[in-house]
Amino acid sequence: MEIRTILVEPKLEENIGAVARAIKNFGFSELYLVNPPDIGEKAMAVASHAYDVLRACEKVNSVEEAIEDSTIVAGTTSRHGISSNKHLRMPFFSPRELKDKVKGIGKSSILSILFGSEDTGLRREELMLCDLVVCIPTSSGYPVMNLSHAVAVVLYELSEVDGGMAAGTVKLASIEDKERLFMHMKTFLDEIGYKEHKKDKTMLMLRRILGRAELTGREVQTLRGILRKAEWKISKGS
Amino acid sequence: MEIRTILVEPKLEENIGAVARAIKNFGFSELYLVNPPDIGEKAMAVASHAYDVLRACEKVNSVEEAIEDSTIVAGTTSRHGISSNKHLRMPFFSPRELKDKVKGIGKSSILSILFGSEDTGLRREELMLCDLVVCIPTSSGYPVMNLSHAVAVVLYELSEVDGGMAAGTVKLASIEDKERLFMHMKTFLDEIGYKEHKKDKTMLMLRRILGRAELTGREVQTLRGILRKAEWKISKGS
Repeated sequence: MEIRTILVEPKLEENIGAVARAIKNFGFSELYLVNPPDIGEKAMAVASHAYDVLRACEKVNSVEEAIEDSTIVAGTTSRHGISSNKHLRMPFFSPRELKDKVKGIGKSSILSILFGSEDTGLRREELMLCDLVVCIPTSSGYPVMNLSHAVAVVLYELSEVDGGMAAGTVKLASIEDKERLFMHMKTFLDEIGYKEHKKDKTMLMLRRILGRAELTGREVQTLRGILRKAEWKISKGS
Repeated sequence: MEIRTILVEPKLEENIGAVARAIKNFGFSELYLVNPPDIGEKAMAVASHAYDVLRACEKVNSVEEAIEDSTIVAGTTSRHGISSNKHLRMPFFSPRELKDKVKGIGKSSILSILFGSEDTGLRREELMLCDLVVCIPTSSGYPVMNLSHAVAVVLYELSEVDGGMAAGTVKLASIEDKERLFMHMKTFLDEIGYKEHKKDKTMLMLRRILGRAELTGREVQTLRGILRKAEWKISKGS
């Protein structure tokens, strides 16, 4: 699925550059601008290595033109509805709910996401063109986000970038490996003359500490290596 | 749990202002700056209504000072480790994994999150001070995010702001309400002389369409109101 970021009448070229950068950061490329200001050096500087996204952006004169070939049009707003009686901004989706909603949509589809201008956000007529409304949960103390921040958060949620070897995907040590480590530690406590009546409690504490740490296989081997080295030193005497 | 955002030697005051805004947007308040530049009008303009966060920020001379009373220190990096042999950036956590990791931590705890400077990111010595490493999944085509965008995404994940009446929490119509609507539609198809052999297929299609739409109780009532109005018009004749 193609994700198209559409900025409706953005005022500051810096924001356009920052949005281009966020688009590239999260592995996307399409940027449409409805009646943008001139894009000059400031925007280019903020876009940094995403100058290609900025250069390839489409400038159009109306929201209708920008969304013409879209499969789904989502409008973002910082003010969400509070009653199911108000249909303009209700029901709204959080960025994560949007991701779930569009999960099954075909590969050749285009999801267009509209972001309003810095001062007014999307106007009523623009929200009327949207299939659904997205609202980032923010504090009532200051609900309105910076334009490029809002884009970054929505694209972060929609991104299909593989997190790589994040902690959740790192192969943890097997139970057998960990048991061998704990046996080794227990033997080591004997070897250093650790007080017998304290041993069980201390072993349990070590188990809890290392359990919380979610050790990898490699880490278990390194810890056992330290124990072996200490045992060798003990056997040799100081 | 208190979340403390720490910017280590940020270069651009605009970024500091944008970070202050993101902090307030997501319901947080603590901002620490290690050796920042002068904070002037530019930062204030970007902070906008978060000038209070910016004004209350703590300026310190070292990372050690900034993290002094922290419970957990997380360091962010755009370059994650790729081998479990490299301990400086491995294993790393995605922002969502970080949220899960710190979920059970006491209310009076402080989670400090370090963000490096715009050009270099966190240096080796700074990452060495961290309990864990956080990496936002980004495209290999351009992995390095704008500083304030990175802060916004991490704080978005950690935010406890209630999403309010997001779609997932809106009360949907009951099965009984929906069944009454479908019965009404079926009767309506009879009333308008819809072809008998097409009826079942069309009713199934309507069920599927409205099923996907996840109707609220109010929407069901409005649709039935339209049907009643049409029936009334039919009974009167044109």
